[in-house]
Amino acid sequence: MKLGYLGPEGSYSYIAAKLYSKSNILVGKPSFYDIIDGVENGELDYAILPIENSTEGAVTLVMDALLKTKSSKILGELTITVKHLLLGIGNNIGDLKYILSHPQALDQCRQFLRENYPHVQLITCSSSSEACSIAKEKGVEYGAIANQYAGELNKLNIILSDLQDNEFNQTRFVVIGRSAEGPTGNDKTSIALYLKDDSPGSLFKVLKIFSEHSINLTRIESRPAKAEIGKYVFYIDFIGHITEEKISEVLKKIEEYSNYIKIFGSYPKGEIK
Amino acid sequence: MKLGYLGPEGSYSYIAAKLYSKSNILVGKPSFYDIIDGVENGELDYAILPIENSTEGAVTLVMDALLKTKSSKILGELTITVKHLLLGIGNNIGDLKYILSHPQALDQCRQFLRENYPHVQLITCSSSSEACSIAKEKGVEYGAIANQYAGELNKLNIILSDLQDNEFNQTRFVVIGRSAEGPTGNDKTSIALYLKDDSPGSLFKVLKIFSEHSINLTRIESRPAKAEIGKYVFYIDFIGHITEEKISEVLKKIEEYSNYIKIFGSYPKGEIK
Repeated sequence: MKLGYLGPEGSYSYIAAKLYSKSNILVGKPSFYDIIDGVENGELDYAILPIENSTEGAVTLVMDALLKTKSSKILGELTITVKHLLLGIGNNIGDLKYILSHPQALDQCRQFLRENYPHVQLITCSSSSEACSIAKEKGVEYGAIANQYAGELNKLNIILSDLQDNEFNQTRFVVIGRSAEGPTGNDKTSIALYLKDDSPGSLFKVLKIFSEHSINLTRIESRPAKAEIGKYVFYIDFIGHITEEKISEVLKKIEEYSNYIKIFGSYPKGEIK
Repeated sequence: MKLGYLGPEGSYSYIAAKLYSKSNILVGKPSFYDIIDGVENGELDYAILPIENSTEGAVTLVMDALLKTKSSKILGELTITVKHLLLGIGNNIGDLKYILSHPQALDQCRQFLRENYPHVQLITCSSSSEACSIAKEKGVEYGAIANQYAGELNKLNIILSDLQDNEFNQTRFVVIGRSAEGPTGNDKTSIALYLKDDSPGSLFKVLKIFSEHSINLTRIESRPAKAEIGKYVFYIDFIGHITEEKISEVLKKIEEYSNYIKIFGSYPKGEIK
């Protein structure tokens, strides 16, 4: 089976893909859009996508892109602990004029970099592993923020360790595919809601339904509805499987308050690795 | 009075600062942290900060930074409609190899750029106006995404107009200062909550209190609590002024469920310009 991830080899998504399943063929793609397209058009069987980080919050590009999927569902999740290294072909941090990485990785180290290296220019790349290959090519003035695996792959030195601002730096990934997963007894469901009465106050009515049915929520996130300020889409994760009667009752009641409900899928509650 | 903004001159923050008040001395600062520090240490009387955009959502750096303020309060808000232009010293989009801007501006044009110019490398700068001055200096291979004002200031040509992915592209700014604003009868209040029972489900209990007191919410946003996955801080904006009895009653009841409540301030409901 082919499992897509945000490549190239050595990215955090690559590490998550390896931890998720050892028996798949891993296929690196250059962007989240290409990954989702690959699942939708059948080129990939599955894909793994970062959805939230404990320092930086929602991976908004992935959340927005998932809203537009047609045939793919969330089948699983996995949380990994992320440690950022500063890598380069040199050994001396004083030589660095540019630090490259994926925007989320730069954000996760922003305070550290700002306090210690305010004059180093930050440059975003499409992945932290791409940052490593650029740093290798360009020389001692260029550093990359990435993981140990990407450093070894590109034969880079570790200039500094544990750059992340937050010691609990975890990233949660979801796995998408075209089939649905049956209940395991320890499941989560992810949905998004466009409410009829388009205000955060009406979110209360929806949360009340969950509360009345004793369904525990694990995440609520608002994203702009891509209209004027004050219009939102709410993403809700909760405990339970879509095939349970209690859950289908709740979803029926929520429909009354919603213009549209997107069901991303039900999947076994994941581990932290 | 000195009003701080994310400079240099010509940035979207600069436009918002000019629209907010014509009688202030505008002081450009290189980062959100420097702006907030300036208000906290008395160098600035006020500052204007972008807080959410209708395409990209929360300006998370500002939201996280506001959580750490000591003496400053939100005194006002202003929403502006943002139109992005592609600017450069040349006229031909075919010459461009690099497009520079602030990460939020790049994000707001991402789909357009990906579909039309997938081979152009995107480079982030600390502001869209800095992007203009770099594009001017570096030549025809460099374009900048910014507003018309920044283009005129740097004598750049408009290569393309209306790049933003979302036709309703609005940014909401807040104004911070060290004094509190009295009630006007048409006010909003912004707070952040660290709930005791640290789950999105307990958010329901808090929303119930607002609902029972007929207080309308205008925004709910979750941000990671900078701990492991699943721990959140909730940002809530609602209609009313902190000096109203109804509001202080609600805040007292919410305290029961919270480890910590940060009150950002009460301020007159702002216009859209």
